[in-house]
Amino acid sequence: MDQQARLDAIHRLKSVAGHVNGIVRMLEDDRYCIDVIKQIQAAQTALARVSEGILDAHLRTCVTTAIQGAETAERERVLTEITEVFRHTARP
Amino acid sequence: MDQQARLDAIHRLKSVAGHVNGIVRMLEDDRYCIDVIKQIQAAQTALARVSEGILDAHLRTCVTTAIQGAETAERERVLTEITEVFRHTARP
Amino acid sequence: MDQQARLDAIHRLKSVAGHVNGIVRMLEDDRYCIDVIKQIQAAQTALARVSEGILDAHLRTCVTTAIQGAETAERERVLTEITEVFRHTARP
Amino acid sequence: MDQQARLDAIHRLKSVAGHVNGIVRMLEDDRYCIDVIKQIQAAQTALARVSEGILDAHLRTCVTTAIQGAETAERERVLTEITEVFRHTARP
Repeated sequence: MDQQARLDAIHRLKSVAGHVNGIVRMLEDDRYCIDVIKQIQAAQTALARVSEGILDAHLRTCVTTAIQGAETAERERVLTEITEVFRHTARP
Repeated sequence: MDQQARLDAIHRLKSVAGHVNGIVRMLEDDRYCIDVIKQIQAAQTALARVSEGILDAHLRTCVTTAIQGAETAERERVLTEITEVFRHTARP
Repeated sequence: MDQQARLDAIHRLKSVAGHVNGIVRMLEDDRYCIDVIKQIQAAQTALARVSEGILDAHLRTCVTTAIQGAETAERERVLTEITEVFRHTARP
Repeated sequence: MDQQARLDAIHRLKSVAGHVNGIVRMLEDDRYCIDVIKQIQAAQTALARVSEGILDAHLRTCVTTAIQGAETAERERVLTEITEVFRHTARP
Protein backbone atom coordinates (compact mmCIF):
# COMPACT_ATOMS: atom_id res chain seq x y z
CA MET A 1 0.00 0.00 0.00
CA ASP A 2 1.36 3.46 -0.78
CA GLN A 3 2.15 5.92 1.99
CA GLN A 4 -0.75 8.25 1.23
CA ALA A 5 -3.37 5.49 1.40
CA ARG A 6 -1.83 4.22 4.63
CA LEU A 7 -1.94 7.64 6.29
CA ASP A 8 -5.48 8.18 5.07
CA ALA A 9 -6.57 4.83 6.55
CA ILE A 10 -4.85 5.62 9.87
CA HIS A 11 -6.55 9.01 10.00
CA ARG A 12 -9.99 7.54 9.27
CA LEU A 13 -9.57 4.68 11.77
CA LYS A 14 -8.57 7.09 14.55
CA SER A 15 -11.72 9.02 13.74
CA VAL A 16 -13.79 5.80 13.94
CA ALA A 17 -12.23 4.96 17.34
CA GLY A 18 -13.23 8.44 18.54
CA HIS A 19 -16.72 7.96 17.14
CA VAL A 20 -17.09 4.61 18.94
CA ASN A 21 -15.96 6.20 22.22
CA GLY A 22 -18.60 8.88 21.61
CA ILE A 23 -21.22 6.14 21.27
CA VAL A 24 -20.06 4.74 24.64
CA ARG A 25 -20.83 8.16 26.14
CA MET A 26 -24.26 8.16 24.47
CA LEU A 27 -25.00 4.88 26.26
CA GLU A 28 -23.63 6.20 29.56
CA ASP A 29 -25.97 9.18 29.14
CA ASP A 30 -28.82 6.71 28.51
CA ARG A 31 -29.59 8.14 25.09
CA TYR A 32 -32.40 6.73 22.96
CA CYS A 33 -31.63 3.22 21.60
CA ILE A 34 -32.44 4.00 17.99
CA ASP A 35 -30.13 7.05 17.99
CA VAL A 36 -27.36 4.81 19.35
CA ILE A 37 -28.01 2.17 16.67
CA LYS A 38 -27.88 4.84 13.94
CA GLN A 39 -24.48 5.99 15.20
CA ILE A 40 -23.23 2.39 15.26
CA GLN A 41 -24.41 1.96 11.67
CA ALA A 42 -22.54 5.17 10.73
CA ALA A 43 -19.37 3.74 12.32
CA GLN A 44 -19.83 0.51 10.34
CA THR A 45 -20.14 2.52 7.13
CA ALA A 46 -16.99 4.48 8.02
CA LEU A 47 -15.10 1.19 8.54
CA ALA A 48 -16.36 -0.06 5.15
CA ARG A 49 -14.92 3.11 3.58
CA VAL A 50 -11.53 2.42 5.17
CA SER A 51 -11.49 -1.18 3.87
CA GLU A 52 -12.39 0.10 0.45
CA GLY A 53 -9.48 2.56 0.41
CA ILE A 54 -7.05 -0.14 1.56
CA LEU A 55 -8.35 -2.61 -1.01
CA ASP A 56 -8.00 -0.02 -3.76
CA ALA A 57 -4.39 0.68 -2.75
CA HIS A 58 -3.69 -3.05 -2.43
CA LEU A 59 -4.98 -3.71 -5.97
CA ARG A 60 -2.73 -0.98 -7.38
CA THR A 61 0.39 -2.17 -5.58
CA CYS A 62 0.71 -5.78 -4.31
CA VAL A 63 -1.91 -7.28 -6.66
CA THR A 64 -0.60 -5.49 -9.74
CA THR A 65 2.99 -6.52 -8.90
CA ALA A 66 1.97 -10.14 -8.32
CA ILE A 67 -0.04 -10.37 -11.53
CA GLN A 68 2.77 -8.83 -13.57
CA GLY A 69 5.25 -11.18 -11.86
CA ALA A 70 6.39 -14.61 -12.97
CA GLU A 71 5.10 -16.64 -10.00
CA THR A 72 1.85 -18.44 -10.76
CA ALA A 73 1.29 -19.43 -7.12
CA GLU A 74 1.70 -15.85 -5.94
CA ARG A 75 -0.72 -14.60 -8.59
CA GLU A 76 -3.18 -17.27 -7.54
CA ARG A 77 -2.78 -16.29 -3.89
CA VAL A 78 -3.51 -12.57 -4.31
CA LEU A 79 -6.56 -13.21 -6.49
CA THR A 80 -8.00 -15.75 -4.08
CA GLU A 81 -7.59 -13.22 -1.27
CA ILE A 82 -9.61 -10.61 -3.19
CA THR A 83 -12.42 -13.11 -3.73
CA GLU A 84 -12.35 -14.02 -0.04
CA VAL A 85 -12.57 -10.38 1.03
CA PHE A 86 -15.52 -9.97 -1.32
CA ARG A 87 -17.16 -13.15 0.02
CA HIS A 88 -16.94 -11.98 3.59
CA THR A 89 -18.38 -8.60 2.65
CA ALA A 90 -21.11 -9.80 0.36
CA ARG A 91 -22.90 -12.30 2.50
CA PRO A 92 -26.15 -10.82 3.67
CA MET B 1 -33.09 -0.40 27.43
CA ASP B 2 -32.45 -2.31 30.63
CA GLN B 3 -29.29 -1.75 32.65
CA GLN B 4 -27.71 -5.11 31.80
CA ALA B 5 -28.06 -4.61 28.03
CA ARG B 6 -26.67 -1.08 28.36
CA LEU B 7 -23.60 -2.24 30.32
CA ASP B 8 -23.06 -5.09 27.87
CA ALA B 9 -23.19 -2.67 24.91
CA ILE B 10 -20.76 -0.27 26.64
CA HIS B 11 -18.36 -3.12 27.35
CA ARG B 12 -18.48 -4.38 23.76
CA LEU B 13 -18.08 -0.91 22.27
CA LYS B 14 -15.02 -0.18 24.43
CA SER B 15 -13.59 -3.44 23.13
CA VAL B 16 -14.32 -2.38 19.53
CA ALA B 17 -12.59 0.98 20.12
CA GLY B 18 -9.55 -0.92 21.42
CA HIS B 19 -9.68 -3.21 18.41
CA VAL B 20 -9.80 -0.24 16.01
CA ASN B 21 -6.80 1.34 17.76
CA GLY B 22 -5.03 -2.00 17.33
CA ILE B 23 -5.75 -1.83 13.59
CA VAL B 24 -4.18 1.66 13.54
CA ARG B 25 -1.02 0.09 14.96
CA MET B 26 -1.14 -2.64 12.29
CA LEU B 27 -1.10 0.08 9.65
CA GLU B 28 1.69 1.98 11.42
CA ASP B 29 3.70 -1.28 11.39
CA ASP B 30 2.94 -1.57 7.66
CA ARG B 31 1.20 -4.92 8.04
CA TYR B 32 -0.21 -6.76 5.01
CA CYS B 33 -3.30 -5.04 3.55
CA ILE B 34 -5.51 -8.13 3.51
CA ASP B 35 -4.78 -8.83 7.19
CA VAL B 36 -5.79 -5.25 7.99
CA ILE B 37 -9.01 -5.58 5.96
CA LYS B 38 -9.89 -8.82 7.78
CA GLN B 39 -9.51 -7.06 11.13
CA ILE B 40 -11.68 -4.18 9.94
CA GLN B 41 -14.34 -6.69 8.87
CA ALA B 42 -14.14 -8.30 12.33
CA ALA B 43 -14.70 -4.87 13.92
CA GLN B 44 -17.73 -4.32 11.65
CA THR B 45 -19.14 -7.68 12.75
CA ALA B 46 -18.57 -6.77 16.40
CA LEU B 47 -20.46 -3.49 15.88
CA ALA B 48 -23.32 -5.40 14.24
CA ARG B 49 -23.49 -7.59 17.35
CA VAL B 50 -23.77 -4.50 19.57
CA SER B 51 -26.60 -3.06 17.46
CA GLU B 52 -28.37 -6.37 17.64
CA GLY B 53 -28.18 -6.45 21.44
CA ILE B 54 -29.46 -2.88 21.68
CA LEU B 55 -32.29 -3.57 19.24
CA ASP B 56 -33.29 -6.66 21.19
CA ALA B 57 -33.40 -4.68 24.45
CA HIS B 58 -35.26 -1.84 22.72
CA LEU B 59 -37.94 -4.23 21.43
CA ARG B 60 -38.47 -5.65 24.91
CA THR B 61 -38.74 -2.25 26.60
CA CYS B 62 -39.66 0.89 24.61
CA VAL B 63 -41.34 -0.93 21.71
CA THR B 64 -43.36 -3.24 23.95
CA THR B 65 -44.46 -0.31 26.13
CA ALA B 66 -45.47 1.76 23.11
CA ILE B 67 -47.41 -1.06 21.48
CA GLN B 68 -49.24 -1.83 24.72
CA GLY B 69 -49.94 1.88 25.18
CA ALA B 70 -52.94 3.89 24.04
CA GLU B 71 -51.15 6.30 21.69
CA THR B 72 -51.49 5.31 18.04
CA ALA B 73 -48.93 7.87 16.89
CA GLU B 74 -46.33 6.60 19.34
CA ARG B 75 -46.97 3.00 18.26
CA GLU B 76 -46.58 4.04 14.65
CA ARG B 77 -43.35 5.87 15.43
CA VAL B 78 -41.58 2.97 17.15
CA LEU B 79 -42.57 0.50 14.42
CA THR B 80 -41.41 2.81 11.64
CA GLU B 81 -38.07 3.18 13.41
CA ILE B 82 -37.58 -0.61 13.45
CA THR B 83 -38.29 -0.81 9.73
CA GLU B 84 -35.83 2.04 9.11
CA VAL B 85 -33.08 0.34 11.10
CA PHE B 86 -33.71 -2.81 9.11
CA ARG B 87 -33.67 -0.87 5.81
CA HIS B 88 -30.31 0.71 6.58
CA THR B 89 -28.87 -2.65 7.51
CA ALA B 90 -30.35 -4.69 4.70
CA ARG B 91 -29.34 -2.69 1.67
CA PRO B 92 -26.50 -4.41 -0.09
CA MET C 1 -49.65 -9.43 6.91
CA ASP C 2 -52.39 -7.34 5.33
CA GLN C 3 -53.59 -8.06 1.80
CA GLN C 4 -52.06 -4.94 0.25
CA ALA C 5 -48.56 -5.69 1.59
CA ARG C 6 -48.88 -9.30 0.43
CA LEU C 7 -49.89 -8.31 -3.12
CA ASP C 8 -47.11 -5.73 -3.21
CA ALA C 9 -44.53 -8.34 -2.15
CA ILE C 10 -45.82 -10.83 -4.75
CA HIS C 11 -45.63 -8.18 -7.45
CA ARG C 12 -42.08 -7.21 -6.52
CA LEU C 13 -40.88 -10.81 -6.25
CA LYS C 14 -42.26 -11.67 -9.70
CA SER C 15 -40.34 -8.67 -10.99
CA VAL C 16 -37.15 -9.94 -9.28
CA ALA C 17 -37.63 -13.40 -10.83
CA GLY C 18 -37.93 -11.73 -14.25
CA HIS C 19 -34.83 -9.65 -13.52
CA VAL C 20 -32.85 -12.77 -12.56
CA ASN C 21 -33.94 -14.51 -15.78
CA GLY C 22 -32.75 -11.40 -17.63
CA ILE C 23 -29.34 -11.79 -15.96
CA VAL C 24 -29.25 -15.41 -17.18
CA ARG C 25 -29.67 -14.06 -20.72
CA MET C 26 -26.86 -11.53 -20.13
CA LEU C 27 -24.58 -14.46 -19.25
CA GLU C 28 -25.78 -16.47 -22.27
CA ASP C 29 -24.92 -13.44 -24.44
CA ASP C 30 -21.48 -13.37 -22.77
CA ARG C 31 -21.94 -9.84 -21.46
CA TYR C 32 -19.21 -8.10 -19.46
CA CYS C 33 -18.74 -9.61 -15.97
CA ILE C 34 -18.95 -6.33 -14.09
CA ASP C 35 -22.26 -5.43 -15.78
CA VAL C 36 -23.63 -8.81 -14.73
CA ILE C 37 -22.43 -8.32 -11.15
CA LYS C 38 -24.09 -4.88 -11.03
CA GLN C 39 -27.40 -6.40 -12.11
CA ILE C 40 -27.07 -9.13 -9.48
CA GLN C 41 -26.47 -6.45 -6.85
CA ALA C 42 -29.59 -4.61 -8.06
CA ALA C 43 -31.60 -7.84 -7.67
CA GLN C 44 -30.22 -8.25 -4.13
CA THR C 45 -31.30 -4.70 -3.30
CA ALA C 46 -34.77 -5.39 -4.73
CA LEU C 47 -35.05 -8.49 -2.52
CA ALA C 48 -34.01 -6.42 0.51
CA ARG C 49 -36.85 -3.99 -0.30
CA VAL C 50 -39.35 -6.88 -0.36
CA SER C 51 -38.16 -8.18 3.03
CA GLU C 52 -38.45 -4.70 4.41
CA GLY C 53 -42.06 -4.34 3.25
CA ILE C 54 -42.95 -7.74 4.70
CA LEU C 55 -41.24 -6.97 8.00
CA ASP C 56 -43.07 -3.65 8.23
CA ALA C 57 -46.43 -5.36 7.65
CA HIS C 58 -45.50 -8.12 10.10
CA LEU C 59 -44.67 -5.58 12.83
CA ARG C 60 -48.04 -3.85 12.35
CA THR C 61 -50.07 -7.06 12.42
CA CYS C 62 -48.68 -10.24 14.05
CA VAL C 63 -46.13 -8.49 16.28
CA THR C 64 -48.56 -5.82 17.47
CA THR C 65 -51.24 -8.47 18.18
CA ALA C 66 -48.78 -10.67 20.09
CA ILE C 67 -47.41 -7.79 22.17
CA GLN C 68 -50.90 -6.59 23.04
CA GLY C 69 -51.93 -10.16 23.88
CA ALA C 70 -51.74 -11.94 27.20
CA GLU C 71 -49.28 -14.68 26.27
CA THR C 72 -45.76 -13.96 27.49
CA ALA C 73 -44.24 -16.85 25.52
CA GLU C 74 -45.83 -15.66 22.28
CA ARG C 75 -44.59 -12.10 22.89
CA GLU C 76 -41.11 -13.46 23.55
CA ARG C 77 -41.25 -15.53 20.35
CA VAL C 78 -42.17 -12.68 17.99
CA LEU C 79 -39.55 -10.35 19.45
CA THR C 80 -36.81 -12.96 19.23
CA GLU C 81 -37.72 -13.53 15.58
CA ILE C 82 -37.27 -9.82 14.82
CA THR C 83 -33.82 -9.84 16.43
CA GLU C 84 -32.90 -12.96 14.44
CA VAL C 85 -33.98 -11.39 11.15
CA PHE C 86 -31.89 -8.34 12.04
CA ARG C 87 -28.91 -10.54 12.98
CA HIS C 88 -28.96 -12.37 9.69
CA THR C 89 -29.19 -9.11 7.80
CA ALA C 90 -26.66 -7.15 9.79
CA ARG C 91 -23.67 -9.42 9.69
CA PRO C 92 -21.12 -8.02 7.30
CA MET D 1 -14.99 -15.22 -17.86
CA ASP D 2 -14.24 -18.82 -18.69
CA GLN D 3 -16.96 -21.15 -19.98
CA GLN D 4 -17.18 -23.23 -16.79
CA ALA D 5 -17.71 -20.21 -14.53
CA ARG D 6 -20.32 -18.86 -16.94
CA LEU D 7 -22.28 -22.12 -17.00
CA ASP D 8 -22.05 -22.39 -13.24
CA ALA D 9 -23.42 -18.84 -12.83
CA ILE D 10 -26.26 -19.54 -15.28
CA HIS D 11 -27.15 -22.72 -13.41
CA ARG D 12 -27.17 -20.98 -10.04
CA LEU D 13 -29.18 -18.01 -11.29
CA LYS D 14 -31.85 -20.29 -12.79
CA SER D 15 -32.05 -21.94 -9.40
CA VAL D 16 -32.44 -18.52 -7.70
CA ALA D 17 -35.24 -17.59 -10.14
CA GLY D 18 -36.99 -20.86 -9.22
CA HIS D 19 -36.46 -20.12 -5.54
CA VAL D 20 -37.97 -16.63 -5.91
CA ASN D 21 -40.99 -18.07 -7.71
CA GLY D 22 -41.33 -20.50 -4.81
CA ILE D 23 -41.40 -17.55 -2.42
CA VAL D 24 -44.21 -16.03 -4.50
CA ARG D 25 -46.18 -19.22 -3.90
CA MET D 26 -45.45 -19.01 -0.16
CA LEU D 27 -47.01 -15.55 -0.16
CA GLU D 28 -49.98 -16.74 -2.23
CA ASP D 29 -50.48 -19.49 0.37
CA ASP D 30 -50.34 -16.81 3.08
CA ARG D 31 -47.35 -18.39 4.81
CA TYR D 32 -45.87 -16.88 7.96
CA CYS D 33 -44.01 -13.58 7.30
CA ILE D 34 -40.80 -14.56 9.06
CA ASP D 35 -40.54 -17.81 7.06
CA VAL D 36 -40.94 -15.77 3.88
CA ILE D 37 -38.26 -13.29 4.99
CA LYS D 38 -35.86 -16.15 5.76
CA GLN D 39 -36.33 -17.54 2.26
CA ILE D 40 -35.73 -14.09 0.76
CA GLN D 41 -32.52 -13.82 2.79
CA ALA D 42 -31.47 -17.26 1.47
CA ALA D 43 -32.07 -16.05 -2.10
CA GLN D 44 -29.95 -12.93 -1.39
CA THR D 45 -27.13 -15.14 -0.10
CA ALA D 46 -27.40 -17.35 -3.22
CA LEU D 47 -27.11 -14.23 -5.41
CA ALA D 48 -24.04 -13.12 -3.43
CA ARG D 49 -22.47 -16.53 -4.15
CA VAL D 50 -23.09 -16.06 -7.90
CA SER D 51 -21.47 -12.59 -7.87
CA GLU D 52 -18.53 -14.03 -6.03
CA GLY D 53 -18.00 -16.77 -8.63
CA ILE D 54 -18.25 -14.25 -11.47
CA LEU D 55 -15.84 -11.86 -9.75
CA ASP D 56 -13.37 -14.68 -9.19
CA ALA D 57 -13.51 -15.66 -12.87
CA HIS D 58 -13.27 -12.00 -13.90
CA LEU D 59 -10.12 -11.49 -11.80
CA ARG D 60 -8.46 -14.53 -13.41
CA THR D 61 -9.30 -13.52 -16.96
CA CYS D 62 -10.08 -9.89 -17.86
CA VAL D 63 -8.34 -8.32 -14.87
CA THR D 64 -5.20 -10.46 -15.19
CA THR D 65 -5.02 -9.73 -18.95
CA ALA D 66 -5.47 -5.99 -18.40
CA ILE D 67 -2.85 -5.81 -15.65
CA GLN D 68 -0.35 -7.77 -17.71
CA GLY D 69 -1.13 -5.58 -20.73
CA ALA D 70 0.56 -2.36 -21.79
CA GLU D 71 -2.42 0.01 -21.49
CA THR D 72 -2.32 2.06 -18.29
CA ALA D 73 -5.85 3.39 -18.77
CA GLU D 74 -7.26 -0.12 -19.19
CA ARG D 75 -5.43 -1.32 -16.07
CA GLU D 76 -6.80 1.66 -14.17
CA ARG D 77 -10.31 0.94 -15.43
CA VAL D 78 -10.46 -2.72 -14.34
CA LEU D 79 -9.04 -1.95 -10.89
CA THR D 80 -11.48 0.90 -10.31
CA GLU D 81 -14.34 -1.43 -11.25
CA ILE D 82 -13.25 -3.96 -8.60
CA THR D 83 -13.18 -1.24 -5.95
CA GLU D 84 -16.64 -0.07 -7.05
CA VAL D 85 -18.10 -3.57 -6.82
CA PHE D 86 -16.61 -3.86 -3.35
CA ARG D 87 -17.98 -0.44 -2.35
CA HIS D 88 -21.48 -1.33 -3.41
CA THR D 89 -21.28 -4.61 -1.52
CA ALA D 90 -19.63 -3.34 1.60
CA ARG D 91 -21.89 -0.51 2.59
CA PRO D 92 -23.98 -1.57 5.52
